[in-house]
Amino acid sequence: MTKQRKPRGPYRKSAERREQILQAAYEAVDEFGERASLHDIAERVGVTQPALTYYFPTRDELLLAVLERRDVLGKAFAGGAAGAGESMVDGMVASTRHTTDHPGLAKLYVTLSAAATDPESPAHGYFTERYRGLAAEVTQDFQEQQRAGVIRADEPADHLARAVLAVLDGLQIQWMHDPTVDIAAIAETFTRMLAPPAGSGQETP
Amino acid sequence: MTKQRKPRGPYRKSAERREQILQAAYEAVDEFGERASLHDIAERVGVTQPALTYYFPTRDELLLAVLERRDVLGKAFAGGAAGAGESMVDGMVASTRHTTDHPGLAKLYVTLSAAATDPESPAHGYFTERYRGLAAEVTQDFQEQQRAGVIRADEPADHLARAVLAVLDGLQIQWMHDPTVDIAAIAETFTRMLAPPAGSGQETP
Repeated sequence: MTKQRKPRGPYRKSAERREQILQAAYEAVDEFGERASLHDIAERVGVTQPALTYYFPTRDELLLAVLERRDVLGKAFAGGAAGAGESMVDGMVASTRHTTDHPGLAKLYVTLSAAATDPESPAHGYFTERYRGLAAEVTQDFQEQQRAGVIRADEPADHLARAVLAVLDGLQIQWMHDPTVDIAAIAETFTRMLAPPAGSGQETP
Repeated sequence: MTKQRKPRGPYRKSAERREQILQAAYEAVDEFGERASLHDIAERVGVTQPALTYYFPTRDELLLAVLERRDVLGKAFAGGAAGAGESMVDGMVASTRHTTDHPGLAKLYVTLSAAATDPESPAHGYFTERYRGLAAEVTQDFQEQQRAGVIRADEPADHLARAVLAVLDGLQIQWMHDPTVDIAAIAETFTRMLAPPAGSGQETP
């Protein structure tokens, strides 16, 4: 990867405007969920709706960009927690906390993801790539942690990675159906299930 | 529970008709997913659409009844597999196979469940109760299996139960976004994570 040059002139201005719109959309969805209106988003930035359409031609494209930002922020958040020590537990718990702290974004994610299971949906390709990318990333991370003796090595890293993503998605749905479920505690339980089994000789490298 | 008396006369006829409609709806959704039309369902049974509405006043009520039947059949299927030996593994794998063999029903489930995360949705209460009921059932089952030494007893049974439901929901979604993912194999991995850790003294009762 080469370092990106800082854009100058009109392009930079355009990139800044796009960023402002995306940030406003993120905040509107955080507040109102899917019901966030394009009108409201345009107003927050102080642009007209046609101007907004210039940057994001369809509502779907804008909403998918919001989900992309949610993934990036979620990872930064989990990564930040990971720095503190117990990487996996903290990361998983941080992810469930992000869900419960931002129900509007979680709702958008669950709804768009469900709609995109239809191969005809414009968002289908986006979600397929999202899961492949995340699974590949977590798998690589887990392979390193298996070598370091932090995660059980008796199961394939890619299975464990997909299971983690599944548990997080599933717990998110359960919480939205019933906010009394303590999904952070369940995520902690799951994380401990990822530890090397005692006596596997894998505990400490 | 007292044994239900077999209904007679007009009521029985009405119950049979309701059952025929439900079965036709189940098959139509299995074939066409959510897009299954009431018109098509009524035609399969040989009734008019108003007659259908007499038994299921709204489309949502009919679709939720289809999902209820899917749960019942899914449990019978998993239970049947369980009789063969390795209960948990077989049950989980059977559940993922049901997903991949019946994508139309899986799609309906994912879409309605996502829509019902909205507390205003008419199906919200249905899903809340569904998860509570399933979680309670699996928890009880797991408590017995913990005592029998089949499942790890170092984590609370209700956490393990909710994690199982989450993994199954999450894998179902991943498979619909990408049918090349071998969700049965991942479910098997997860099942092995439920086993008592070696050296826990819990292995054999």
